[in-house]
Amino acid sequence: MTAPDPMASLADTEMLTDALARVFAPWVRELDLRLLEARAGEVTLALPVTSRHVHEGGVLCGQTMMAAADTAMVLAVMTRLGGFKPMTTVQLQTSFLRQVAGTSGAARVVARVFKMGRSLVFGEVQVWNADDELAAHATTTYALL
Amino acid sequence: MTAPDPMASLADTEMLTDALARVFAPWVRELDLRLLEARAGEVTLALPVTSRHVHEGGVLCGQTMMAAADTAMVLAVMTRLGGFKPMTTVQLQTSFLRQVAGTSGAARVVARVFKMGRSLVFGEVQVWNADDELAAHATTTYALL
Amino acid sequence: MTAPDPMASLADTEMLTDALARVFAPWVRELDLRLLEARAGEVTLALPVTSRHVHEGGVLCGQTMMAAADTAMVLAVMTRLGGFKPMTTVQLQTSFLRQVAGTSGAARVVARVFKMGRSLVFGEVQVWNADDELAAHATTTYALL
Amino acid sequence: MTAPDPMASLADTEMLTDALARVFAPWVRELDLRLLEARAGEVTLALPVTSRHVHEGGVLCGQTMMAAADTAMVLAVMTRLGGFKPMTTVQLQTSFLRQVAGTSGAARVVARVFKMGRSLVFGEVQVWNADDELAAHATTTYALL
Repeated sequence: MTAPDPMASLADTEMLTDALARVFAPWVRELDLRLLEARAGEVTLALPVTSRHVHEGGVLCGQTMMAAADTAMVLAVMTRLGGFKPMTTVQLQTSFLRQVAGTSGAARVVARVFKMGRSLVFGEVQVWNADDELAAHATTTYALL
Repeated sequence: MTAPDPMASLADTEMLTDALARVFAPWVRELDLRLLEARAGEVTLALPVTSRHVHEGGVLCGQTMMAAADTAMVLAVMTRLGGFKPMTTVQLQTSFLRQVAGTSGAARVVARVFKMGRSLVFGEVQVWNADDELAAHATTTYALL
Repeated sequence: MTAPDPMASLADTEMLTDALARVFAPWVRELDLRLLEARAGEVTLALPVTSRHVHEGGVLCGQTMMAAADTAMVLAVMTRLGGFKPMTTVQLQTSFLRQVAGTSGAARVVARVFKMGRSLVFGEVQVWNADDELAAHATTTYALL
Repeated sequence: MTAPDPMASLADTEMLTDALARVFAPWVRELDLRLLEARAGEVTLALPVTSRHVHEGGVLCGQTMMAAADTAMVLAVMTRLGGFKPMTTVQLQTSFLRQVAGTSGAARVVARVFKMGRSLVFGEVQVWNADDELAAHATTTYALL
């Protein structure tokens, strides 16, 4: 529908990496999310699957996937804003399609902005397991403050 | 519509407290949720608001509220099942109505089962701030495995 | 948490009945929703269950319940605004808990405002079948324009 | 991730067209949805924008978009099942991104299956306006009966 978004510049990469280390709550920063790729309106993060995030059933817990999704979307919105500005999650709906084995490698979290409105932002987040299967899918609305 | 559900017995309380300490991922257990009240189909938990869960904006982060909501619903389902059985979150939709100040006291998380089907369970979760205002509201579907 | 909301005045009732007959699309007005009760922040509507809304499986179709839910919430918001003002649905999430038999009497649709913000409104809608069982539950966000 | 799904055969096209004319409630069939394209796990429908579906604000009403989304997903699931089998919508979450002018041409509704489980099916639906902009986005869970 539109020309492909350009890759993020080095400045953007630094901005996003800095945000990951600073704007989120300490408990969320402990997810240890790492930036894999960014372009205008889209970021991809690595979500390490460690025993700290695995429940009794042996799989990555849903709480971790939701937290990663919300975090990734903040970064995706930042790529459109050109920096961090106060925003708040209005709603986030997550569907859990497949379990992620607790012994698998990192999951990939892809957050994408559907629409930047003046005050509302819409987007989606996908969580892919190490076998490139869709494990969770979220849609979300943010309000710019 | 139905007679009021009986309060949980001491055995139920122990079952739920034990589950809080055992079935969830270590990262989730660090939410330090505490059981305040339980009855058939409903549990109320205290969610401590600590600096570890407060983001740069000075408020309790949404990731923590979603994680608490999902956790509370597992316990609410357990009150109907009479114990822990494998289940999985199919979807969880959370709306964020009000910010919870990072310096406020504990929030209260109330999870309620709407319907126990043979394989699907429906419910809602409310997060109330220390001023008894609704801060977040979630609806969710679980699958019994 | 708060004192019970007062019943709607006669003027409110006329305002809501007029809105039902006028602001919605013709196809939606054909749902033939009728106002049963209103108070500040809450309305209850009757949703007739007729063969026109029953699918091959013999039950009230989900499309009808979603349309009724969205419509009812507009009226609930109007009870807070004191009249109709332009608004738009940001998102609506509906869970379908129980089927409504196509031969049953009218369903009841209860829409309730959780929070009136300056620009965003949050609420929930319940659809009850003729046996007073929860058939569908929706949560929704509206934007005031 | 996977090889592109093959286009639907003529038999599939007939199956879907027949379903559109038969399995849905009469009120839903009056949406006059028409099949534009189908392949395994994905269908595209045309949704006529007519004055019957336009509310006082001059735009296509959300109720119509939700009804079209739910209907399109049933057809998308049928492309995987190879025919109509009883199923029920568990939940459907719709976000409304852009208004669709009441005087515009037909909208396009694209429904896509994310995952066919043994009992649960996950998918998404996009509603595109006549300018090829995303007007609404839905995610949904179905249960096979």
